[in-house]
Amino acid sequence: MHLDTLFSPQSIAVIGASTKAGSVGYTLTENLLKNGYRGKVYPVNPKTDRLFDLPCYKRVADIPEAVDLAIIIVPADIVPAVLREAGEKNIRAAIIISSGFKETGATGKALEETVLTIAQEFDITLLGPNCLGFLHPKIGLNASFAKHLPHDGSIAFFSQSGALSTALIDLSVDTLDFSHFVSIGNKTMIGENELLRYFAKDENVKTLGFYTEGLTDGNTLIKIGREILARAEAKPIIVLKSGTTTAGESASGSHTGALAGNDATYSALFKQARIVRAANLEQLTHFLTAFSHNSLPENNRLAIVTNAGGLGVLATDAAVTNGLRVATLSQETQEKLTTILPKAGSALNPIDVLGDALADRYRAAMEIVVADDQIDMLLVIVTPQTMTQAKETAEAIVSIKQHTPKPIIAVFAGKVSFQDGLAALQKNAITTVTYPEAAAEALAALAQVANWRKETSPTPFSPENPDHEKAATIIQAAKNAGRAALTEKEASEILIAYGFPFFATSLVNNKEEAASVAEKIDKKVALKIVSPDIIHKSDVGGVILNVEPKDAGEAYEKLMAQVKEHVPKARLLGALVVEMAEEGGQEIILGLKKEPGLGTVVLAGLGGIFVETFKDTALRFAPLTREDAEEMLHELKAFPLLQGTRGQHGIHLETLITMIGRLSQLAEDFPEIAELDLNPLLSFPKAENFRVLDARIRLEK
Amino acid sequence: MHLDTLFSPQSIAVIGASTKAGSVGYTLTENLLKNGYRGKVYPVNPKTDRLFDLPCYKRVADIPEAVDLAIIIVPADIVPAVLREAGEKNIRAAIIISSGFKETGATGKALEETVLTIAQEFDITLLGPNCLGFLHPKIGLNASFAKHLPHDGSIAFFSQSGALSTALIDLSVDTLDFSHFVSIGNKTMIGENELLRYFAKDENVKTLGFYTEGLTDGNTLIKIGREILARAEAKPIIVLKSGTTTAGESASGSHTGALAGNDATYSALFKQARIVRAANLEQLTHFLTAFSHNSLPENNRLAIVTNAGGLGVLATDAAVTNGLRVATLSQETQEKLTTILPKAGSALNPIDVLGDALADRYRAAMEIVVADDQIDMLLVIVTPQTMTQAKETAEAIVSIKQHTPKPIIAVFAGKVSFQDGLAALQKNAITTVTYPEAAAEALAALAQVANWRKETSPTPFSPENPDHEKAATIIQAAKNAGRAALTEKEASEILIAYGFPFFATSLVNNKEEAASVAEKIDKKVALKIVSPDIIHKSDVGGVILNVEPKDAGEAYEKLMAQVKEHVPKARLLGALVVEMAEEGGQEIILGLKKEPGLGTVVLAGLGGIFVETFKDTALRFAPLTREDAEEMLHELKAFPLLQGTRGQHGIHLETLITMIGRLSQLAEDFPEIAELDLNPLLSFPKAENFRVLDARIRLEK
Repeated sequence: MHLDTLFSPQSIAVIGASTKAGSVGYTLTENLLKNGYRGKVYPVNPKTDRLFDLPCYKRVADIPEAVDLAIIIVPADIVPAVLREAGEKNIRAAIIISSGFKETGATGKALEETVLTIAQEFDITLLGPNCLGFLHPKIGLNASFAKHLPHDGSIAFFSQSGALSTALIDLSVDTLDFSHFVSIGNKTMIGENELLRYFAKDENVKTLGFYTEGLTDGNTLIKIGREILARAEAKPIIVLKSGTTTAGESASGSHTGALAGNDATYSALFKQARIVRAANLEQLTHFLTAFSHNSLPENNRLAIVTNAGGLGVLATDAAVTNGLRVATLSQETQEKLTTILPKAGSALNPIDVLGDALADRYRAAMEIVVADDQIDMLLVIVTPQTMTQAKETAEAIVSIKQHTPKPIIAVFAGKVSFQDGLAALQKNAITTVTYPEAAAEALAALAQVANWRKETSPTPFSPENPDHEKAATIIQAAKNAGRAALTEKEASEILIAYGFPFFATSLVNNKEEAASVAEKIDKKVALKIVSPDIIHKSDVGGVILNVEPKDAGEAYEKLMAQVKEHVPKARLLGALVVEMAEEGGQEIILGLKKEPGLGTVVLAGLGGIFVETFKDTALRFAPLTREDAEEMLHELKAFPLLQGTRGQHGIHLETLITMIGRLSQLAEDFPEIAELDLNPLLSFPKAENFRVLDARIRLEK
Repeated sequence: MHLDTLFSPQSIAVIGASTKAGSVGYTLTENLLKNGYRGKVYPVNPKTDRLFDLPCYKRVADIPEAVDLAIIIVPADIVPAVLREAGEKNIRAAIIISSGFKETGATGKALEETVLTIAQEFDITLLGPNCLGFLHPKIGLNASFAKHLPHDGSIAFFSQSGALSTALIDLSVDTLDFSHFVSIGNKTMIGENELLRYFAKDENVKTLGFYTEGLTDGNTLIKIGREILARAEAKPIIVLKSGTTTAGESASGSHTGALAGNDATYSALFKQARIVRAANLEQLTHFLTAFSHNSLPENNRLAIVTNAGGLGVLATDAAVTNGLRVATLSQETQEKLTTILPKAGSALNPIDVLGDALADRYRAAMEIVVADDQIDMLLVIVTPQTMTQAKETAEAIVSIKQHTPKPIIAVFAGKVSFQDGLAALQKNAITTVTYPEAAAEALAALAQVANWRKETSPTPFSPENPDHEKAATIIQAAKNAGRAALTEKEASEILIAYGFPFFATSLVNNKEEAASVAEKIDKKVALKIVSPDIIHKSDVGGVILNVEPKDAGEAYEKLMAQVKEHVPKARLLGALVVEMAEEGGQEIILGLKKEPGLGTVVLAGLGGIFVETFKDTALRFAPLTREDAEEMLHELKAFPLLQGTRGQHGIHLETLITMIGRLSQLAEDFPEIAELDLNPLLSFPKAENFRVLDARIRLEK
């Protein structure tokens, strides 16, 4: 793809440039010209000869020189023709601003497909359609109809919603500096994955962020996210995903046609891709600021310096709730603090410099705290008291930050009194927020990414010799027969081929066979009559439970006699000898679910009430690593039950982890599996006792 | 209490007024003089004759006229003397700004008690100590050392943290207007309950708010909260409580000495008192704004009008997550919207007026929506697009709001482009927030209070004839013996006196007695040997389970024979005949826990894993209403298990509710109960099968 050409073009044709002030064609051309872009701009519009004091061309073919990028603003139905002309002119990149495609329904969707085909035919790299364009501040390029070009910086951001982009730029002009800001619209060719990959390689980019209403390739996102995380230089990725509720999904459907999935699935996806998920738009802005201004911390030990006890408490609560440690200061640090603080101050953490603290006391306290090895990051709170020196305190923070790699966020909890102080902080790339809780959340996000960076390389699962061929044969047979739902027998055979344990079961026809089969099973068995004439076996004495292997022959005879007595005319075809379950098994539910476009999710949870009422399940996309599987189990609220609690045995965790690995392998080997349920898998302290009770598999239609 | 004199004094003595610029004594005097307060101000300071061009008095006794309020700013150890002088001068109200009391330890605590005694002796109403003072904008009175006097308005706010107060005033000068702003410091005499009661009666007050780090009388708060809710005119109460984590509690302890309790207990308390709890400081400011600008809605049906699809989705998600309904518009409304919207717009809810919407289109859409009976409130989102008319759109919102009682919150998601628009909204008391999620949360809080206001009057529990005297006798006996922990027998007798069902159990000495007791129980029984020489009864054949009443005589003989065979020398004192539990009971845990100062909490949950691992419990303060008890059970995540699920029987809920009522009565009758556990109570579909298996009671020391 020609993404360099798209984002750093030497020349641009604006197809649909307009003289009508306020129109998109006008605004976009004006934006290209007024922000210092040094490439050439060629307005194209059959109705006029000049525009913005530039020659205007009737058609793109008329432009006398080569063109890198076409920006297309014509009505949707003319877009294919215009794009073809661009292709014929050897233009390698295009933005389709126009709407009227996939988002409007079936006709629009067909039109969008036509456009994509043309782009592929002419090797055009396509942004949009139904987008706002992009901004590339470093080269003064505002190829969008957003009003303002942000300051040049190190955040690459892209958004499925154009309006959200303009809001974000407008809101953050003092606090966020962007390398690129891209509206991706309908994502026909360029989606999230393409841009993450591209911007991760750009040395001007330090932080990546995006807003999405739905993704289409989860597995690739996981791969890209982990690759970016593993780079020598950290480039954290932040996402805001909307459509977390059914109503929200449907609202998003109504305006972009995004295929929104289950929200828990997305949380699992982002976690697995090591992408930080912001809870809301405000948090997104805080996270982007905090990541772009700060290096990652060594660890999660926080110090709080405050001139307001109450806000120190709020910060402490939020820090702990979000997984930070409000660290114990070293004895030495406490002693040093005591020398510079008034008697009523607190040399414990949060460090209370008191309401009358001038900038010097703040500076001294911060210097001492930042030098402490037990501290990884600093949250400074300043409230407007009578004597507070906002500007000077801000300057102290700036100078501390210049001499430490530790993250610092400043809470300036005031407005009227803090204009100068805030300006000083913002000018010097210090992250400031108004409320202490927001600061703690942002620092916790930094610590989360730092923690991810410490992970050792993942351990892939490698199930022992799955009988792939057998499973493939069964699946193919079902497909050939046009069946999506596999039979119980087919499902269990596939699972047995992948090493899942089912109860041993054999049809026997006489006493001797019964005895020999039962002795082979070597555990208590049940005997069940087999007869085409009997439906309710138990009612006619057709089931005998808890038979010791040595008694199986005798039990067979008893079974036959009982049934004959009850239903003399029934045809008896023998009996099933079925292994009995060990007692006290813990029901586990494992499953696969294909999320169309995203990938296949592996689900784990405890059976019964835990899944149904408490919704206590964990999700990960296949393929999983061993670490993923372990994380899943630890995520379950009921994990203590698996681990063993209250003097009760847990289950053999290693076996469960192995089974999750086998499921992941199945999902990878057979992407046509739409749904698979092991419900339940009976699990035990001993590996050899695990058994699947019931299994279901459904294929994609 | 002389709260009118405190908050609206005719004359004020400033004891400790100072000439030193920047000192508290200076700032406070200056604040009294420069904000238009029309009462008299008398500086008191032995070291000078004039201050701020006013005569300065050596002692308060020297002031020639009567004084209403003394503001005391002298060092802590001089405060008692000064306060006594104020008392002798017949001053009826005092603010002690000085710190150095309870918050500093035992000596300070003793000093604070001395101060309180003096205040009581002279009938002085006391604010503080260790506080910032208060502000009463309506009379131009800034009796604090906060820099700015907020605009006069209808919010009465009080705070345990002084610095949080100054931050809040500074932050919200454009958005929040206060009738009173009070810093309550150590709350020696005036705490939250006193101020809620006082301000609820003030006709200038429409909204109440407070920040606390810990309360001391939960039961009274519940009473006051419910009384205020029930008033003809709604006066919603908003609280921010910090110290939600152990670290936060300890941080709060370090600076005000507040006795912080368990956070879930506080959530229960506020819910029961019908007080809205803000999740953080930012949400507090939003809630205060939203409640002070809006009437309560009829119901929870929300309409969203937006020029940005993405932000509409975010608002929808947040609305649904917080319990609002994104309402279906009536057919008529949809048709009307269609006539005013462009084809690409959405006449569904959220209503997308599109990025190019001018103020007129916003106005038309809002007018149509607000007129719809299916809509109770409106969330308008404006993002800065090229053509957006921020100011005119703001004016349209103002005029819509003037003609409807329905709550409206405006999300103006921009900064650079929205200065004029925001000013127009703020000037006209329209609640504005920057992010859509925050707007949805605030509207949900309005709907919550509206819903509370609809509640019918609560039904008090009245347990049938509890044997109060019997319980009192047992408790008194334990007290007399100096025992805090009651024996199993005492605990069960108290509970039986209050109508709790235990297993029937009798000591019998022969076959005939065994038979007759068992027949009276009329259910399966267990027989257990009674012998001082036998510890492990089961090991020596000393327990026989599941005996039918008719077989009890025989079983008695068998029991005796078995035991004699195993331990011939043991002294046998007979056997216990114990009623067997029905099978399949659901374990319930009920309990009481006294939270010192707050009141006694009733706890309910399901036994075992549900309480221990899932922490699935519900709390309410005694005394409970029937509705409280029902709410508790519905709050449990495991409630479906009680109600019946998956074809399984539930339990007899009415019986469980009655038992919660009996516990509440016990807590009310015996406030000396520190802890009580029914663990478990076995519950069943039939009321008569409920049984307490084990009970423990501990009294206060």
